[in-house]
Amino acid sequence: MLRNIDRLSERMRGLGVTLRPHLKTCKNIEIARLMMASDAGPATVSTLSEAEAFAAAGVRDITYAVGIAPAKLDRIRGLRRQGIDITVILDSVEQARVCRDVPALIEIDSDGHRAGVRPAERERLLEIAAALGPESLRGVLTHAGGSYHAHGAEALAAAAEGERKAAVEAAGILRSAGYATLVVSVGSTPTAHFARDLSGVTEVRAGVYVFFDVMMAELGVCSYEDIAISVLATVIGQHHERGVSFIDAGWMALSRDLGFGNSGNGLVCDAEGKRLDDCRVIECSQEHGVVNRLLPLGTQIRILPNHACATAAQFAGYQTPEGSMPRVATGAW
Amino acid sequence: MLRNIDRLSERMRGLGVTLRPHLKTCKNIEIARLMMASDAGPATVSTLSEAEAFAAAGVRDITYAVGIAPAKLDRIRGLRRQGIDITVILDSVEQARVCRDVPALIEIDSDGHRAGVRPAERERLLEIAAALGPESLRGVLTHAGGSYHAHGAEALAAAAEGERKAAVEAAGILRSAGYATLVVSVGSTPTAHFARDLSGVTEVRAGVYVFFDVMMAELGVCSYEDIAISVLATVIGQHHERGVSFIDAGWMALSRDLGFGNSGNGLVCDAEGKRLDDCRVIECSQEHGVVNRLLPLGTQIRILPNHACATAAQFAGYQTPEGSMPRVATGAW
Repeated sequence: MLRNIDRLSERMRGLGVTLRPHLKTCKNIEIARLMMASDAGPATVSTLSEAEAFAAAGVRDITYAVGIAPAKLDRIRGLRRQGIDITVILDSVEQARVCRDVPALIEIDSDGHRAGVRPAERERLLEIAAALGPESLRGVLTHAGGSYHAHGAEALAAAAEGERKAAVEAAGILRSAGYATLVVSVGSTPTAHFARDLSGVTEVRAGVYVFFDVMMAELGVCSYEDIAISVLATVIGQHHERGVSFIDAGWMALSRDLGFGNSGNGLVCDAEGKRLDDCRVIECSQEHGVVNRLLPLGTQIRILPNHACATAAQFAGYQTPEGSMPRVATGAW
Repeated sequence: MLRNIDRLSERMRGLGVTLRPHLKTCKNIEIARLMMASDAGPATVSTLSEAEAFAAAGVRDITYAVGIAPAKLDRIRGLRRQGIDITVILDSVEQARVCRDVPALIEIDSDGHRAGVRPAERERLLEIAAALGPESLRGVLTHAGGSYHAHGAEALAAAAEGERKAAVEAAGILRSAGYATLVVSVGSTPTAHFARDLSGVTEVRAGVYVFFDVMMAELGVCSYEDIAISVLATVIGQHHERGVSFIDAGWMALSRDLGFGNSGNGLVCDAEGKRLDDCRVIECSQEHGVVNRLLPLGTQIRILPNHACATAAQFAGYQTPEGSMPRVATGAW
């Protein structure tokens, strides 16, 4: 984990941008402090519960990177009154009108993946900026969600360049309309590791790089040995005719995330973390998993998650060689 | 929820069997008390954390219905020393040998769904019983997991009968070998609602019936109006060209459970719980969902979960008209 953190921190330093780690993956303050430039941030979160929990632990510079719902503004204002510099994101005039007292980034759609304004929608962009006003407009933010489908170094570098270009182009439109000192925020773990040039970008967001996972290894972003998180499970039975074992980890422990569909519910390692050849969790129910191999009763195995964010979210905390560490916000509210 | 609980309780009374509700779905003590015949049980759990939490809340008659790992026996013995009548399940001689001081049920495979001894494996069954000894052998247990793939009343009644027959046949083999007063435990929510005859069965286990979900409605076990759990979410954006809305509930809130594949990540209702025609969550990321309809910014919707066990597991508690209620064991350890 420390190596993963160092690798991206150094990369971002080399490219001359700020790293604003996304804390939705780890949701733990000790790990967050290792990821952030300082104990005060900067940081990215995906829920207000995360924002409030990390703020209570001393994080003061936070971007809440999910489109703001008007009904959530009171909690945002509450955090700001406590001196937390929290920024929201939005992509409509309607949201902008109610956010004039809160710093906001306009969400840019860099790859058609989800929400946001396309840089080509120049008029819409300027309307949102005008509705927000120069006091609130902090800049632009984009997330190349499509990079999760870009396999290999060239495709990933192209996704990173697309992300950069869209954000820089949108910022240029705003600048030419008189808005100054803009944040230009881009990021995803794949693009952060493959961007060759980040000219015009001020900060990069990424989260899953702290642990990595089978998906990131399949994309070529990391090696399987870089994966710094696993689910420890025990063999509780065997089916000799089928040649499979039953384990005490099902989708409750592993999540239902199937990644790219090549790794079942997760790849199986021995208790020391060494991968067992072609060994996968091939079926899951709530607290049962089925492994495609006969293993002795009581054997402990480690399962590499398809998607670290999803698997970590199934647990209230982590077990490390040094002891256990809680996640700050358990559950989805 | 109360109607769902009453319906199954009355059905079980009518069929002359004990209901041993599975608490893995609700994981909440107030709801558990409404499901159980008394505050002391009987109950079924799927993890030792659930067993310990419910035991601390006064539940004393517990079946831990996941094959026992030898390393977990110390926690089982700890509960028994506190006066908790906890029973384990197993399906191998190896497990039986280390469980001679703990009450155990032999798991029976009634439909090739997962673990267990097939009644036709008479010799294996008797070997396990002998290894366990008459003091520990409490009886047999089976779960017709295949019933989740049985659509319609006839198929469900057939699944229930298959479950009953396998358990009763296995118990008969043990009885004819001299083992007496046996528990014959069957159950799944679909079979519990469609069994026509439970002769020879002593108890039925079921869990998801407390809330029901889209899968149970699709199987014909309940109506959509019976579903007593939903995820409240808010519209945070729109994509006019695609004709979709973005909401602040992704797989973190809804789980990744796709049910039978017909309902996206969940069916959408208005805030009062009335279903919106053909409205579904069609994509999810961690904290974003995409709904296949343009809805005004700030609109609150309720999402019916594909699988209530999986969706409830994503939350630390429930919001009810009377207030909030915590789940006893959050996270998967």
